[in-house]
Amino acid sequence: MAAAVQNITLYTAKVCPYAQRTELALKEAGANYKEYQIDLSNKPEWYAPKVNPASKVPAIAYGGPDVAPDQPSPDSTKLAESLILVEFVADLFPNATFLPKDPVERAKARFFIDQVGAKFSPGYVGFVLRGESHTATLEGARAIQALLPEGKKYAIGDEFTIADIAFAPFWARLKLALDHGLGKYQPGEEKVLLEALAAPEFAKFNAYTQRLLERPSFKATWDPEHVIGVYKARFSN
Amino acid sequence: MAAAVQNITLYTAKVCPYAQRTELALKEAGANYKEYQIDLSNKPEWYAPKVNPASKVPAIAYGGPDVAPDQPSPDSTKLAESLILVEFVADLFPNATFLPKDPVERAKARFFIDQVGAKFSPGYVGFVLRGESHTATLEGARAIQALLPEGKKYAIGDEFTIADIAFAPFWARLKLALDHGLGKYQPGEEKVLLEALAAPEFAKFNAYTQRLLERPSFKATWDPEHVIGVYKARFSN
Repeated sequence: MAAAVQNITLYTAKVCPYAQRTELALKEAGANYKEYQIDLSNKPEWYAPKVNPASKVPAIAYGGPDVAPDQPSPDSTKLAESLILVEFVADLFPNATFLPKDPVERAKARFFIDQVGAKFSPGYVGFVLRGESHTATLEGARAIQALLPEGKKYAIGDEFTIADIAFAPFWARLKLALDHGLGKYQPGEEKVLLEALAAPEFAKFNAYTQRLLERPSFKATWDPEHVIGVYKARFSN
Repeated sequence: MAAAVQNITLYTAKVCPYAQRTELALKEAGANYKEYQIDLSNKPEWYAPKVNPASKVPAIAYGGPDVAPDQPSPDSTKLAESLILVEFVADLFPNATFLPKDPVERAKARFFIDQVGAKFSPGYVGFVLRGESHTATLEGARAIQALLPEGKKYAIGDEFTIADIAFAPFWARLKLALDHGLGKYQPGEEKVLLEALAAPEFAKFNAYTQRLLERPSFKATWDPEHVIGVYKARFSN
């Protein structure tokens, strides 16, 4: 794993929480990489055949010659799936601190990620994208809070890890959607959810999520104005 | 990661493909561990509160004093989720070869696992557990075969990796269910599926899956008679 790091090209989209996970890992690792924005509503015709057959972001082209991102080389390795890419970046840059070295800590971080997928994301998707009740989102926040250690800064301790990387982009988009009343939910229900989340019961969760949004790597990879624009177009009907 | 390995107790069940993943990792690593069989149809009352709140297998109690498995110590760390445990075992035993050292190989192995979950498991579950058509299972086998490298022994190359560990237990159970006509599918449809899978089109897939079933770690952790018994009880109505 100490071999020289080769060319990295990231295919990403500012609106996509999965893609931001990989951007966070690259920033935290201090990686040099090229970035190419994919317009998810109008993907370039070369993207699926030459980069990611699933036609999703994020993807990374690794190695091969130094080419323009919109002319991907067949000699680079194409990799996909956000969490796989986050771990890939950690493996490429073993001095990065976001993948814990201790096996138990590492398992805890991965379990936190599992719980984000199992207990937080479904509620968020149901509320914002499908207009279901906000209660599952509230339960999701409660489940995340229950995992947070007492008196620590981040998901599994005082270090910012893959667990925080996996969660932050989803939380940021939910918060943004609620603050701007954007989503498929019943008008006004976002205020009910925001008030419920502001209760003292969620103090630990709120301190944690505030810390996530203040992380320099997060700020460097977050463009709320752009995301609001996409959400307005998406939810305008 | 070179710290001394502590006490490992595995909570498992012979019928469960997820649990067998973790058993395969432990065998491949040459780990010393205690094993406790959980009867999934009659779980001990201490299991959820003291080992895994989700009440599923596999789980590992790591560290703490040397205790009887049915008297878990509060001083051990309890870990869950099969793929997390497979990687945990690899982290504990860095000399084990099933987690590739090369970041690209590692990402490819993890991507194979992602595809097993996305493209193979749903068809298998739909056919055997819910009685849906066999075509999704056939498509799943086709998707897995498409990922297999030419002229290599295993999922991503000539080494047996986490990718093989993740897939083998599911394939073995599907094959067993089909061979014995056990499942929720229409009687006889299993023969249609077996004949389709026997076609020359699936030669690479069949050579690969045969190799999986012959792996010593697989044989050491596979009890088909027991699994048939559980399936007969489950599908008897």
